Amino acid sequence: MRTRRVTAVVFLVLAGAVGTRAEDGYELWLRYRPVSDPVLLKTYRAAITGLAIEGSSPTLRAAREEANRGLRGLLGVDVPLATEAHRDGLLVAGTPSRSALVAAADVGTELGRIGQEGFVIRSTRINGKRATVITANADIGVLYGVFRFLRLLQTQRPIEGLEIVDAPRVQRRVLNHWDNLDRTVERGYAGFSLWDWEKLPDYLDPRYADYARANASIGINGTVLTNVNANATSLLPEWIAKAAALARVFRPYGIRVYLTARFSAPIEIGGLKTADPLDPPVAAWWKRKADEIYASIPDFGGFLVKANSEGQPGPQDYGRSHADGANVLADAVAPHGGVVMWRAFVYSSEVPDDRAKQAYSEFKPLDGKFRPNVLVQVKNGPIDFQPREPFHPLFGAMPKTPLVMELQVTREYLGFATHLVFLGPLFEEVLRADTHAKGEGSTVSKVIDGSLHGYPLTAMAGVANVGTDRNWCGSVFACANWYAFGRLAWDHERTSAEIADEWVRMTFTNDPAFVRPVTEMMLGSREAAVDYMTPLGLHHQMARGHHYGPGPWVSAGRADWTSAYYHRADAKGIGFDRTATGSNAVAQYFPPVAETFGRLDRVPENLLLWFHHVPWDHRMASGRSLWEELVRHYYGGVEAVRRMQATWKALEGRADPERYEETRAFLAIQEKEARWWRDACVLYFQTFSGKPIPDGYERPEHDLAHYEAITKHDVPGSRE
Amino acid sequence: MRTRRVTAVVFLVLAGAVGTRAEDGYELWLRYRPVSDPVLLKTYRAAITGLAIEGSSPTLRAAREEANRGLRGLLGVDVPLATEAHRDGLLVAGTPSRSALVAAADVGTELGRIGQEGFVIRSTRINGKRATVITANADIGVLYGVFRFLRLLQTQRPIEGLEIVDAPRVQRRVLNHWDNLDRTVERGYAGFSLWDWEKLPDYLDPRYADYARANASIGINGTVLTNVNANATSLLPEWIAKAAALARVFRPYGIRVYLTARFSAPIEIGGLKTADPLDPPVAAWWKRKADEIYASIPDFGGFLVKANSEGQPGPQDYGRSHADGANVLADAVAPHGGVVMWRAFVYSSEVPDDRAKQAYSEFKPLDGKFRPNVLVQVKNGPIDFQPREPFHPLFGAMPKTPLVMELQVTREYLGFATHLVFLGPLFEEVLRADTHAKGEGSTVSKVIDGSLHGYPLTAMAGVANVGTDRNWCGSVFACANWYAFGRLAWDHERTSAEIADEWVRMTFTNDPAFVRPVTEMMLGSREAAVDYMTPLGLHHQMARGHHYGPGPWVSAGRADWTSAYYHRADAKGIGFDRTATGSNAVAQYFPPVAETFGRLDRVPENLLLWFHHVPWDHRMASGRSLWEELVRHYYGGVEAVRRMQATWKALEGRADPERYEETRAFLAIQEKEARWWRDACVLYFQTFSGKPIPDGYERPEHDLAHYEAITKHDVPGSRE
Repeated sequence: MRTRRVTAVVFLVLAGAVGTRAEDGYELWLRYRPVSDPVLLKTYRAAITGLAIEGSSPTLRAAREEANRGLRGLLGVDVPLATEAHRDGLLVAGTPSRSALVAAADVGTELGRIGQEGFVIRSTRINGKRATVITANADIGVLYGVFRFLRLLQTQRPIEGLEIVDAPRVQRRVLNHWDNLDRTVERGYAGFSLWDWEKLPDYLDPRYADYARANASIGINGTVLTNVNANATSLLPEWIAKAAALARVFRPYGIRVYLTARFSAPIEIGGLKTADPLDPPVAAWWKRKADEIYASIPDFGGFLVKANSEGQPGPQDYGRSHADGANVLADAVAPHGGVVMWRAFVYSSEVPDDRAKQAYSEFKPLDGKFRPNVLVQVKNGPIDFQPREPFHPLFGAMPKTPLVMELQVTREYLGFATHLVFLGPLFEEVLRADTHAKGEGSTVSKVIDGSLHGYPLTAMAGVANVGTDRNWCGSVFACANWYAFGRLAWDHERTSAEIADEWVRMTFTNDPAFVRPVTEMMLGSREAAVDYMTPLGLHHQMARGHHYGPGPWVSAGRADWTSAYYHRADAKGIGFDRTATGSNAVAQYFPPVAETFGRLDRVPENLLLWFHHVPWDHRMASGRSLWEELVRHYYGGVEAVRRMQATWKALEGRADPERYEETRAFLAIQEKEARWWRDACVLYFQTFSGKPIPDGYERPEHDLAHYEAITKHDVPGSRE
Repeated sequence: MRTRRVTAVVFLVLAGAVGTRAEDGYELWLRYRPVSDPVLLKTYRAAITGLAIEGSSPTLRAAREEANRGLRGLLGVDVPLATEAHRDGLLVAGTPSRSALVAAADVGTELGRIGQEGFVIRSTRINGKRATVITANADIGVLYGVFRFLRLLQTQRPIEGLEIVDAPRVQRRVLNHWDNLDRTVERGYAGFSLWDWEKLPDYLDPRYADYARANASIGINGTVLTNVNANATSLLPEWIAKAAALARVFRPYGIRVYLTARFSAPIEIGGLKTADPLDPPVAAWWKRKADEIYASIPDFGGFLVKANSEGQPGPQDYGRSHADGANVLADAVAPHGGVVMWRAFVYSSEVPDDRAKQAYSEFKPLDGKFRPNVLVQVKNGPIDFQPREPFHPLFGAMPKTPLVMELQVTREYLGFATHLVFLGPLFEEVLRADTHAKGEGSTVSKVIDGSLHGYPLTAMAGVANVGTDRNWCGSVFACANWYAFGRLAWDHERTSAEIADEWVRMTFTNDPAFVRPVTEMMLGSREAAVDYMTPLGLHHQMARGHHYGPGPWVSAGRADWTSAYYHRADAKGIGFDRTATGSNAVAQYFPPVAETFGRLDRVPENLLLWFHHVPWDHRMASGRSLWEELVRHYYGGVEAVRRMQATWKALEGRADPERYEETRAFLAIQEKEARWWRDACVLYFQTFSGKPIPDGYERPEHDLAHYEAITKHDVPGSRE
């Protein structure tokens, strides 16, 4: 008796001692903390009394390990492994072909329509005993199903009467790492590259597997390891070996590796005199290179290419088209089942009348000219990942060419690491946008998932926001954007609200007093950032180069890299006339959309200045003048951040001290910088409007000259 | 009864679940795992029944937290706080002036001679009850004493009858971070800079405090935050605010912040036309800058300067001396109690007859010309942190100028992150070297600790090897070098063997079956690296630029940046004649040393080729020819690494899987790269000697051309 008590006490203390390790965010949404509701915990324990994951493939091993880890954490007990259903409560996972237990269960008829990645989770009976079956056509579906089942427990959902049938709507759900070979990350705000190239392939950082787990848990199945501003070195044999080592770690988690291809690589590392895509030795070089890569990485995904854009070499250097360029690479990887993702983010070296029109102008005429294994990768909007853009006019305009939508998960224009800006609503907004390509309901999501045009290939890409920071993404809340990208790439019908709710429960707590205000704060955060940065359709108003903070006064140098090019403010008004009287970019949209955007009385106010040059006195729907409305939005953005601070303050004690403090400090930075944006922009635009800041608003802290003089030397991610 | 059992089981499982967090090296030597010897655990628990650390300063709070953390981890119980000695077993820590309990104890008379940082740990009685008292003259001494006491438990030493009196032998024990403002680290092999400049000063990464704890635990009391290849930006007001924020975190741990000063800062950020140290506006600018820094950082340590060296600006640009340059900065910080550490690592832009002579030639004549608050910082050897160098001839040669010894803890020339090379023996070798400046026994350590020349200021500097890598130093074993630097800076009489033993016990285990072979492996590792890289006094044979791997064939470009300049191999022999028939660098040493080094029959064989050009057939002490001996060393280096691998293999299961696997993988890299060094060097030198590799040695895997063609693209730390 005495011994037992001592033992109990010792373990209590040990648990306490070890448990004092800080919540540093490393575990992301896979924290697996004990179910806090005691009734539910009891129910769960009763419902899961044994675990059977039959099969020995690396993927099933990963599924078994994840189930063990998750159940041990969530239920606080080691669920015993079982091989038969001799009592109620067996959790079975496997494919019908490999698992006798699954084969013995009634799993319905849905397996036929969920492909290789889908899964079924069903409450059923085996040998008359109650059981839960997770099944799929392939092992990776089983792994996805296990993560989904654990998520039910993590979010404290019922696990009785389950009838879940789920499959991804998009085939390739890919992270794009803008990671350089020296481990700097272009537009990376979470430290440096996860890929420790020097130690690869000989040493595999355990973090690689955790990266793969996190991605698999949200259905991401591809990763482009290298920056689109590419370095041919990454295609040298010793670098292929490094990529292959990562691919081996990722493979059990269903994740394929892709690489960026520098178009001039045949010259730089191939010793050729040209990279002309129609030159046979160039084509032969790419074929050999592809063969070499596939010899090391049999499931290599393919190449992502940025060509003839922002100084990158490309086919136009030889008078060839983007299609010619993409096709030579496509032919090289085709025999191996690879694809080429060719970016549409291009603009010529001459300053155009409207940069927003360029991708459409260049790519629309090429529709039908690409090989079947080419996808054209289009940013969500026509400029460059701004806080708000209209959807890109290419969506719906290339029925013969599979289009990938590229979203930016890293927040180059949305507060970098520290601002709390949940991107779910941004992603959702563009996915739901209606192109009218084939009449009403031709949403962007239907373009992307292939249903509108019958694309045989489908994909979604997100520019990654992960790095070496312990919390992966630079801030705890930034991880919600990684999560949201994965969840929406898997199923674009999910809402931001659902996704935020899931993420908060898994990342922090199921306590409703925490979940409700925090999801609300997240869901409003993107609009807050739009308001304090670029309200009413303004865009591209950031500082030059590093893109941190406001720079509406930027006007020197190449015109379409300046803010003035985009805001076009003058004494009369503000905004970019993209109607027929201006650049006529609206004409790139399908007629009803073009008319909506093109008419001042129809355009949504949140895109007003994107499409129109509007007089300062223009009467807005509110009855206020444009100037007053603009000021109101800038001030409203700051107010929204202050409400976020108040929300967070009220939650002190409901989150662990480490993550609480990080978020508190970051919100303080955000409030300070929101004021910086607001005051700089309002003062600057006031020099054109000549109108006062209405009464009732606090005055800017400094004069315009102060803001114009600010120089930042500490901005990461701006080296390319 | 049933309830209790369930509880016990649940906690067991929870402890297990939480305990499965990987041993990732983050905790360094402060792991505080439960004392594994049950008898000893019982003894310790009986001897420590209550804890009293009286006082509320931030330093004493840190001491209390560390004591709590340590005792909870080591003893598995929360030792109750006590305010009086009402039973045996009180652990008291504090200063006699602030703690009534300490004042009531008999702590001997040693306090008078241990200064502000020393401490006394004494087993004594308070109110007739047995107690252990940790006391000091200042709070920081108490903190050091707490760490020392915890180390006794960590290394399972007796804690009865304690009579420990300890104080540092050197005043300033400083890490030099070669961290750039973009967070890259010059010659950094552990990821990137810990200083997250962008988020400073608003957000304080919890890691900063852990960095301070680790340093305080080994007595390091200063940190130079920025690279000696300096950027004037770091002296802008917003950057001073960032440094001040770090200083606030470090202050309770007794750590002062220093900055590097770019000599041309008055021009670059001060708007002056000159940085001439004798120009009064320049002096005034530095004074104002120092005042500004001290307003934010009252205990700012001072400036570290690299001037007129490798392209850095300096006083010689204006025809002034190093003393002029150092003095203008010294005058600026003097009113605040600051110092200037002026590096002697200089060499002129013209190629000298012998680079080894330059620092001495430039600095010796300046002895006596520096302000009293200037220290001249001298690398351990006359070239540049090579695997083995003779001690620097400046040691002993500047009796009027305090000299700081600069050691490289990061391993630019010693295998970077992955090779297991414990630097304790290297540090020890130079500290014990006898300069004969004032006759026999005038060791380098006596120069450094001030006892030889009566320096009023003393310091030791180590170029830091820490970065963002989770394990801090790139590999677990690299952390032993950080530890060894701190321990030797505190007390240069400690031996490498003691230090390795302590470190292994605290970092891994007290299991003698592990401790003995691992310390042995560590202690032999430096000689192994010398053997496979640069045996018998060879030096500077690495690849150009990034310094990774062998490059004995490097001969193009500036002569004293080539390998050929240093090995001087020809058909007759090999080695740099630094005797009177050559560069006569030996003459910079005091006569008996000069004679030892200068005579072929007296020079230690491990420095033979440093000082002499020696015929290939020269008969060595072993009876073998020089060529045979050279080959034997190269092969012996590889064999030594293989023995390390065998040692480690035999220990499988005695270390946690994560750190075991990391070390296993890194030793495999080391073996591969040791062969690369050996084969490249032997084949290359063979082109001069014309002699065969003796029978019985394995043949090189490739021919020389293969090794010469190797190009590495993945080497970190080479950007400046």
